[in-house]
Amino acid sequence: MDKYINQAKTLMEALPYIKKFNNKIVVIKYGGSAMIDEKLKMSVIKDITLMKLVGIRPVVVHGGGKKINEMLEKVGKESLFVDGLRVTDDETMEIAEMVLSGSINKEIVQMFQQQGIKAVGISGKDGRTILARKKMPGGKDIGWVGEIEKVNPELLDSLMNDDFVPVVAPIATDENNHTYNINADYVASALASALKAEKLVYLTDVEGVLRDVEDKDSLISKIAIDRIEQYKEEKVITGGMIPKIENCKKSIEAGVNSVHILDGRVEHCLLLEVFTNSGIGTMIYKQEDNHGE
Amino acid sequence: MDKYINQAKTLMEALPYIKKFNNKIVVIKYGGSAMIDEKLKMSVIKDITLMKLVGIRPVVVHGGGKKINEMLEKVGKESLFVDGLRVTDDETMEIAEMVLSGSINKEIVQMFQQQGIKAVGISGKDGRTILARKKMPGGKDIGWVGEIEKVNPELLDSLMNDDFVPVVAPIATDENNHTYNINADYVASALASALKAEKLVYLTDVEGVLRDVEDKDSLISKIAIDRIEQYKEEKVITGGMIPKIENCKKSIEAGVNSVHILDGRVEHCLLLEVFTNSGIGTMIYKQEDNHGE
Amino acid sequence: MDKYINQAKTLMEALPYIKKFNNKIVVIKYGGSAMIDEKLKMSVIKDITLMKLVGIRPVVVHGGGKKINEMLEKVGKESLFVDGLRVTDDETMEIAEMVLSGSINKEIVQMFQQQGIKAVGISGKDGRTILARKKMPGGKDIGWVGEIEKVNPELLDSLMNDDFVPVVAPIATDENNHTYNINADYVASALASALKAEKLVYLTDVEGVLRDVEDKDSLISKIAIDRIEQYKEEKVITGGMIPKIENCKKSIEAGVNSVHILDGRVEHCLLLEVFTNSGIGTMIYKQEDNHGE
Amino acid sequence: MDKYINQAKTLMEALPYIKKFNNKIVVIKYGGSAMIDEKLKMSVIKDITLMKLVGIRPVVVHGGGKKINEMLEKVGKESLFVDGLRVTDDETMEIAEMVLSGSINKEIVQMFQQQGIKAVGISGKDGRTILARKKMPGGKDIGWVGEIEKVNPELLDSLMNDDFVPVVAPIATDENNHTYNINADYVASALASALKAEKLVYLTDVEGVLRDVEDKDSLISKIAIDRIEQYKEEKVITGGMIPKIENCKKSIEAGVNSVHILDGRVEHCLLLEVFTNSGIGTMIYKQEDNHGE
Amino acid sequence: MDKYINQAKTLMEALPYIKKFNNKIVVIKYGGSAMIDEKLKMSVIKDITLMKLVGIRPVVVHGGGKKINEMLEKVGKESLFVDGLRVTDDETMEIAEMVLSGSINKEIVQMFQQQGIKAVGISGKDGRTILARKKMPGGKDIGWVGEIEKVNPELLDSLMNDDFVPVVAPIATDENNHTYNINADYVASALASALKAEKLVYLTDVEGVLRDVEDKDSLISKIAIDRIEQYKEEKVITGGMIPKIENCKKSIEAGVNSVHILDGRVEHCLLLEVFTNSGIGTMIYKQEDNHGE
Amino acid sequence: MDKYINQAKTLMEALPYIKKFNNKIVVIKYGGSAMIDEKLKMSVIKDITLMKLVGIRPVVVHGGGKKINEMLEKVGKESLFVDGLRVTDDETMEIAEMVLSGSINKEIVQMFQQQGIKAVGISGKDGRTILARKKMPGGKDIGWVGEIEKVNPELLDSLMNDDFVPVVAPIATDENNHTYNINADYVASALASALKAEKLVYLTDVEGVLRDVEDKDSLISKIAIDRIEQYKEEKVITGGMIPKIENCKKSIEAGVNSVHILDGRVEHCLLLEVFTNSGIGTMIYKQEDNHGE
Repeated sequence: MDKYINQAKTLMEALPYIKKFNNKIVVIKYGGSAMIDEKLKMSVIKDITLMKLVGIRPVVVHGGGKKINEMLEKVGKESLFVDGLRVTDDETMEIAEMVLSGSINKEIVQMFQQQGIKAVGISGKDGRTILARKKMPGGKDIGWVGEIEKVNPELLDSLMNDDFVPVVAPIATDENNHTYNINADYVASALASALKAEKLVYLTDVEGVLRDVEDKDSLISKIAIDRIEQYKEEKVITGGMIPKIENCKKSIEAGVNSVHILDGRVEHCLLLEVFTNSGIGTMIYKQEDNHGE
Repeated sequence: MDKYINQAKTLMEALPYIKKFNNKIVVIKYGGSAMIDEKLKMSVIKDITLMKLVGIRPVVVHGGGKKINEMLEKVGKESLFVDGLRVTDDETMEIAEMVLSGSINKEIVQMFQQQGIKAVGISGKDGRTILARKKMPGGKDIGWVGEIEKVNPELLDSLMNDDFVPVVAPIATDENNHTYNINADYVASALASALKAEKLVYLTDVEGVLRDVEDKDSLISKIAIDRIEQYKEEKVITGGMIPKIENCKKSIEAGVNSVHILDGRVEHCLLLEVFTNSGIGTMIYKQEDNHGE
Repeated sequence: MDKYINQAKTLMEALPYIKKFNNKIVVIKYGGSAMIDEKLKMSVIKDITLMKLVGIRPVVVHGGGKKINEMLEKVGKESLFVDGLRVTDDETMEIAEMVLSGSINKEIVQMFQQQGIKAVGISGKDGRTILARKKMPGGKDIGWVGEIEKVNPELLDSLMNDDFVPVVAPIATDENNHTYNINADYVASALASALKAEKLVYLTDVEGVLRDVEDKDSLISKIAIDRIEQYKEEKVITGGMIPKIENCKKSIEAGVNSVHILDGRVEHCLLLEVFTNSGIGTMIYKQEDNHGE
Repeated sequence: MDKYINQAKTLMEALPYIKKFNNKIVVIKYGGSAMIDEKLKMSVIKDITLMKLVGIRPVVVHGGGKKINEMLEKVGKESLFVDGLRVTDDETMEIAEMVLSGSINKEIVQMFQQQGIKAVGISGKDGRTILARKKMPGGKDIGWVGEIEKVNPELLDSLMNDDFVPVVAPIATDENNHTYNINADYVASALASALKAEKLVYLTDVEGVLRDVEDKDSLISKIAIDRIEQYKEEKVITGGMIPKIENCKKSIEAGVNSVHILDGRVEHCLLLEVFTNSGIGTMIYKQEDNHGE
Repeated sequence: MDKYINQAKTLMEALPYIKKFNNKIVVIKYGGSAMIDEKLKMSVIKDITLMKLVGIRPVVVHGGGKKINEMLEKVGKESLFVDGLRVTDDETMEIAEMVLSGSINKEIVQMFQQQGIKAVGISGKDGRTILARKKMPGGKDIGWVGEIEKVNPELLDSLMNDDFVPVVAPIATDENNHTYNINADYVASALASALKAEKLVYLTDVEGVLRDVEDKDSLISKIAIDRIEQYKEEKVITGGMIPKIENCKKSIEAGVNSVHILDGRVEHCLLLEVFTNSGIGTMIYKQEDNHGE
Repeated sequence: MDKYINQAKTLMEALPYIKKFNNKIVVIKYGGSAMIDEKLKMSVIKDITLMKLVGIRPVVVHGGGKKINEMLEKVGKESLFVDGLRVTDDETMEIAEMVLSGSINKEIVQMFQQQGIKAVGISGKDGRTILARKKMPGGKDIGWVGEIEKVNPELLDSLMNDDFVPVVAPIATDENNHTYNINADYVASALASALKAEKLVYLTDVEGVLRDVEDKDSLISKIAIDRIEQYKEEKVITGGMIPKIENCKKSIEAGVNSVHILDGRVEHCLLLEVFTNSGIGTMIYKQEDNHGE
């Protein structure tokens, strides 16, 4: 009987969130362990399936770092890095696109379809959804690494209106038909902005933003965007977390209501974040809103 | 952390039911203790609210026995009964209609609206939804007690299409503009049949069908309609339960997928029945279907 | 043959009015003798039926003073009055709601349905159509007498779009789920304003505004709203007529084209006002328009 | 006051007919005196305007005998007749088409537009609405006199759906682009059949079918189609009335509900026939229906 | 094989024009030799058929000078001219309307229908598409010659939306139901402006604007509207060409993208102008646009 | 001037084909040299662009044999063949999918987008468009080579309705989420059948069916499906052509109107086949139709 009471309580707790997110767009950046571990994979797919079924419109953006490396190795291609960015020559680009658009993208689609959810895998080339230009970090040409110039949401809207979940590979094109590899975090952020998404969720391999990196219990649950500078000065936000957080800030300024950095290693973390009062991960938000979540 | 795991499990358990009942009609006969106890009342309204939010189309039919009695007493009207049916003269009918259509009906609407759910209270007279004729039990005229002749689902469809939850008082009319009081169980059953509902749920004050009325643990979870006769012979189904079960059978034969006799005294019984694997109450079903619920 | 000529003449006379009012909303406050006398009742229902059939969108608002009194008497409840307003305690409110929403409202619906017109009876609670707050005349608390705070026309629009005639009981709710009784004249005026009605018609038990109350032939056919003050000073508009006329003025300022005070004791007065050149009752209008009716 | 009572009575009498004919198609063959006398002309146009306004979908088919003769005379063209049919050579055909499609047709349109009714004049050539073949009475070639082979109602439906009244000149074409003049009675009948019209009305210069041609009071109000043969044998139906009545019969067999032969010389005869209980002219109907008109 | 290459080349050359004009409105003033010579007639009809089939929305406006003269002669009516404009008395107007709306208009419709294109012939009276007032050149009353007061594009839009090609006779009406004859050039220009057409094309009997009238090779291919004054001063644009060019200018100022004066004596000139790079005739355009055609 | 005449002639010749194929589906199997040579590639894309612009709904299915081989070589994977079919183990399948869905598919999309045509690249996994089962030629298991079990056209319809050209990679899935490589010829044929396409076109590297393989002038222009057996007996259809032709036959039996084997090495062969009278390649058709092309 206790079990029943808890079940009912959980379902009731979900009620206001289902109301709040009805018909809203949630963009999920899918990556890290959640894309490798079989059990976590299935848990993410099922979480998104439930979101879809209760009326949310999910958009999935995936990366694919590991599999690209494996494939490059297989063909005996060595990778050069400049400032942490892979130098992407023609052959690297071709391999990266094949892995992202042809392998990972379709596998995710297949998992959704198996759950009875209609899904379609596209890259930024389809319907010219993402236009990019060459990224020149510090003026250096490192090949076909792109930054986003424009998002055209027509195909995404069309697919969502026809009840499909779009799964997006982070590949783009320019007016001259070059192909670019783009950081999936940036793609997720740009799509969330263009679609005026309610939420943007990053599945990562960290607990969220920790006040003390050594102490897992020092998680900061919420960060208003006007506190970011202070956290940077205090060295709370450092290293690879800096561009990620800057990205979150941009999305919020573009109209996304909240951005979440979740620990993708926790099963059903997505579900818990969206439908329960549980404080999973770190939420970035605009100060003036009184986020009661 | 255990709490999280259980929350996620409960939400995941709901997944297939949300899928299955998406856009389906569920007719709920609302009565008994669940209509009197304030806490249970709110629990029913919230259960139906959650059903509406995840895409189910609920239709609520209510009775009102107690309040009618109170009002009749107030005006000093004595009640006569023939074979358990109240002799319904003009004055009794007028009081009954006022209580059902004017008081209980609107209170339920108000509770839904407070939950943010759009609701509209109607009686069988509105849009001539229910046409009745005089019921003559054993050929005796006991006044304005009606039996259903025809259901016209146009207004119900119209309200559901415009996203309102219809709340129906068990009052009907005939071609000559007489007003009839109809047993709410029959109204629920007739609407479920006419709307080709997925489910018909009776909120009652019993645990369900018990093999041994004295033993609460002897609940029969499922009854295929072709076993009903046998149960009647075995005196498992007796007394007031007989017409109720006959009613269930008729609805199933008219295309309703399953009928449920729930214990309305259990908080969130509706929620547990619809969204969990828990075997609450008794389900009546058609044998050939392999109901895996 | 003469009969034919007159018939044709009458139909032809209706032509410009049918053109003018096509698809327009007309709000009718139904009350007084027209709600008691059986012949007059039927005449009102038939008039509105014809209006509906030639393309007008009628909305009916009804009162119910007499029947409420009868019912209060029946239950032995005495009424207190403060400044002409009934002190409305919980029990009085409950009785009033039952009579209005459960008895009168449904009877009117039934009469429309008998004429082949689809009708739905609602109160201000349904679809939270009317939100009210407590009326405190001279700062005195006289119970559940409300004044209108907000009209939400969504349900009315939805019913009219699906071809139903809405019949509205003057009951409202507030955010805290209290129930209020509201003067039906005010409800009619507020709905007409919110729906941007073409016409608002009051069926009353007077000839209209008389220059000399003793002289039935001293009817004033038209009053521009900027003449109202003068008429009040001249004691032409006095007593109970003052709030009614003030109400008319407000509706016209909110965009209603004309307001009519008709003598509901004249059979088919509604029809004659709407479809003929006959000057029945008093019309209130905005000066700048040159009402040629 | 008596006037008011009669006005109300007339409008009330119209009520059931407005209900009955709502959204139904009525085809009117417009010809004879009603097309010559200025007062009658205006009366027909106004009758059809009222029909349109209360929700009927009128289709007007006109002839034009007199004006064609005048024009032929003007250009000095003599007319030959074979069995009462004009021998129609190329020049006659050209003149007839110009008069019908270019003059009479547009004048009718103009009169509707002046009444605020949107109208469009077409001939059977537009949208290839009427396909014809050469009529060879008794095997004789009398030129471009056609009989109807096929009606394509697409353009008529399209115009009616966009709220225009179609006005049709009795001109048709064949696959080889020849132009044919067709008897307007036949065109009206064929359009009524193709459009499954509710009513087909012929405006003529006779009182209807008279039992005794000399006695205007011997009007036969209704003729069931299975009585036609008998009336022909009894010489009640003779001469030019025979093909007209045969035409009526065909339309009724094709699904038109009733066909009316009205006296177009009576002002507002159309109005009186459609909206009052008055028995104007002769109605042809199918026996099994119990026409209560 | 060479033939194949050229065919493919021509089709490929058409590609950008088909893209550019997709769903755009092109108004064609049809007149001159192209309306007399049988071969040219068919070539125009086929050109417009192809335009329709590849997604352009053509509107055809025709004149009819020659046939009106022939008919006037036939009835022995002499014509008076004042400043080159025909004095149009009642009889002349009647003849002109019959020829335009009843003969030429329907012949063009018939030719389209023969090509499998749905067409409807209307005059400015239908749907009150064109309202006119009397033209008083130099204050002189020359009868029913009109100038355009207002274009109501509702009927044209309605026909085009239902996939019909409108064919328009240059006849109009005023509020008092007078009939006016209007210069077809002006009608084409006014319709193009009201419909915000992409192109307005005049089929004429000249090569276009020639720098030297004697020298057919001196064709001016493009004229920006701000060069018109200069050309007038230089006597390049003279005589009857002046009002035509002024008309073009007005249309361009009203939003038409380009106006073309084509030589209707060249077979398929319309086709070549619209779908090839060939510089046929003279194009009038707005300077700031860089018309690359 | 001659050039003009020929241009006009070509455009006119296209007219009946544009009419005939308006809104019809044409499935194009894109492969062979036309997928390798840069000039031919662009010619195919432009041909399909023109088809799309004049109202045809193209669906493109591509193969990719060569590129798969190159990639397999790169990773040092050797290929085994059984009866001409590649033994497809897990690694081979993964490479094949990446090349087909991730590289070739997106390149084609990009070329369409550059022409201003909206295109979307999908594989049979997206929207579960193609369900397959393992192909066991002669009972032998050769790995992930599939044959088509079911086509679900929902996603294709949805994309075409939203004006996108679907580009399909010949990859499919089964209920157990295995991935299969399918012969692109079979995919094209199955999609054409499921979509009830008007035409199915194979771009190949042969002239068509030749009576004498050595003699390029011995092309057979048309083959009725009931003549196929005879041609096989006569050894006109031999070797690899047999399954291709059998495939054509199946599509025609499933309702496709005609199947074409074109020589993809001829520039604009697609255009010439669809829009001109030129007899390019071999057409397979059903005898009873009198294909006049």
